[in-house]
Amino acid sequence: KTIVALSGDGIGPEIMAQALRVLKVVAEKIEFDYEVVEKAFGGAGIDQFGHPLPEETLLACQNSDAILLAAIGAPKYDNAPVRAEQGLLALRKALGLYANIRPITVHPALAHLSPLKREVVVGSDFVVVRELTGGIYFGEHTLEETSARDVNDYSAEEIRRIIRKAFEIARKRKKKVTSVDKQNVLATSKLWRKIADEVATEYPDVTLEHQLVDSCAMLMITNPKKFDVIVTENLFGDILSDEASVLPGSLGVMPSASHSETGPSLYEPIHGSAPDIAGQNIANPVSMLLSVAMLLRESFDNEVGASMIEQACDTVMNEGILTRDLGGDASTSEFVDALIKHL
Amino acid sequence: KTIVALSGDGIGPEIMAQALRVLKVVAEKIEFDYEVVEKAFGGAGIDQFGHPLPEETLLACQNSDAILLAAIGAPKYDNAPVRAEQGLLALRKALGLYANIRPITVHPALAHLSPLKREVVVGSDFVVVRELTGGIYFGEHTLEETSARDVNDYSAEEIRRIIRKAFEIARKRKKKVTSVDKQNVLATSKLWRKIADEVATEYPDVTLEHQLVDSCAMLMITNPKKFDVIVTENLFGDILSDEASVLPGSLGVMPSASHSETGPSLYEPIHGSAPDIAGQNIANPVSMLLSVAMLLRESFDNEVGASMIEQACDTVMNEGILTRDLGGDASTSEFVDALIKHL
Ligand SMILES: CC(C)[C@H](C(=O)O)[C@@H](O)C(=O)O
Ligand SMILES: CC(C)[C@H](C(=O)O)[C@@H](O)C(=O)O
Repeated sequence: KTIVALSGDGIGPEIMAQALRVLKVVAEKIEFDYEVVEKAFGGAGIDQFGHPLPEETLLACQNSDAILLAAIGAPKYDNAPVRAEQGLLALRKALGLYANIRPITVHPALAHLSPLKREVVVGSDFVVVRELTGGIYFGEHTLEETSARDVNDYSAEEIRRIIRKAFEIARKRKKKVTSVDKQNVLATSKLWRKIADEVATEYPDVTLEHQLVDSCAMLMITNPKKFDVIVTENLFGDILSDEASVLPGSLGVMPSASHSETGPSLYEPIHGSAPDIAGQNIANPVSMLLSVAMLLRESFDNEVGASMIEQACDTVMNEGILTRDLGGDASTSEFVDALIKHL
Repeated sequence: KTIVALSGDGIGPEIMAQALRVLKVVAEKIEFDYEVVEKAFGGAGIDQFGHPLPEETLLACQNSDAILLAAIGAPKYDNAPVRAEQGLLALRKALGLYANIRPITVHPALAHLSPLKREVVVGSDFVVVRELTGGIYFGEHTLEETSARDVNDYSAEEIRRIIRKAFEIARKRKKKVTSVDKQNVLATSKLWRKIADEVATEYPDVTLEHQLVDSCAMLMITNPKKFDVIVTENLFGDILSDEASVLPGSLGVMPSASHSETGPSLYEPIHGSAPDIAGQNIANPVSMLLSVAMLLRESFDNEVGASMIEQACDTVMNEGILTRDLGGDASTSEFVDALIKHL
């Protein structure tokens, strides 16, 4: 099995190194055979090849069984002819990664870090399913001197497959899908809602509710426990999944996965490359480690390895070994040292 | 001076009645001469004229000095050929109400109702300035059987006038503008950011910062005190202004204003028509009353009348006379009775 590792920029390389260290220990225990191929991506791609998604990186990703990405972007690339983030958009499109999955759970031991009141936030446990390769991100963009224009388009098929994905996930969870749109204004949302209703008939065991995006932005804060699986289009998903990510009190504890129809999936922490703390060995590795767990579970069907990492993260955090973002003083490598002892 | 009153649906008529009662008392004290013209709008327009924005309503609005709107919409109109909300969009467009202004302040006495922790939320005091007549709301919408499409377009002039509005408001406040866009993806956002930078040079006394919409959705919850004036395009403004409205703990305490370049402005509470509690005399009238205060200040330059209402609302709430949404048991009219005593 081949895993492509894209370390990227900022804290990317240091958290990737720790993730690969943990993967190695776990793989021995679960007898999982794999090789890691490291490739340049993002700013690192610009530095080495003049492009954030170098051809050999894309090729390696296409030929892999799974992709692990740390983080990309740094101020020094802001004026590059092709910016680091464009590499991310290009990679999503080239691999057809249409389904971005972000589980949001609030660790009770960290509830004091959440900006929300404990009673509002503890017990939240939902997944945001974001359409990732369509909509206004990939429609025509026209920029002129005195006007600009972006086109948001969706085909019924693009909508159907992401809604089905959400129902599949809900079926294994609390059996509730919240479909988010702006049906009172947008044509794409009218189509979205119609297809969500159609797909719902294929899943009689799962409940579907509709929310307008503006209401959803409120409910996510006033009553996050009401959600199980939220499914929405690309731009709304960008906003809502970031909004959701504030609930646990730190971006440092949340993984994500992006799936295509048949090709390799990509796993990455939800936080950015944090150039301000890069190279200091103080970044929180938990998001990255939980992304490795998702990779084992979702790409290699290895529940044992996945749970091993998840439980070890939990145990170490419960022992109070925490990085700075969580109010502790453990370094990145100290956290991982402690975690490896628990594997 | 002519004020058009659009009572609309649900709790609309009852809160409008209370607002006009308060306006009458205040007007006598400040010697403000006015007449009120009541017109059908929203569901009420559909009932009486078969359209949510009847022609005579629009005409009356166009010929008025200011418009007071309560709330529109109810489930019974969901399948009307033209839905109640379409009336709102049509009215905004017809009157050129390009600048929607929503002040967000957190009343310390109500902080216990906020989903956010007291230390995060108390002291928040910002204004969301939303572009209201452009963007994807008013671009071409195409809905077909197997695909759909919406067009987001902005002219430089549309962007410039709303950004200027934000700077004008900031100048009278804490002198900071946060311009929100999705500049790493959208052409309209690239133009938006360029024009924001240009306008900033006209206001050297005001600081401009840029935020991506996804980051802003996070910051609004993690650090709402950092904002003074937030300015953004129509769709982002819809989402962010609703998200912001959860901070004070109840939608029942926030007014809004929408301004055109030279015509009459419209004032309305930010909450909806709450059909579930309509006719029970339990709705919170504060948003509506503060909208009357904004009307006196912004359309008639009457600071005395505006402050009189604002201070009376504050005093009554501090006395613990609160409607149900705020944890009290005062009825709508009891709240207003108490308020009138303080005028
Ligand atoms: C970097 C940017 C283009 C990207 C997006 O908007 O999709 C990011 O915000 C994300 O959510 O992964
Ligand atoms: C009713 C709807 C069309 C409207 C909007 O999206 O503008 C509402 O949500 C608002 O914010 O006033």
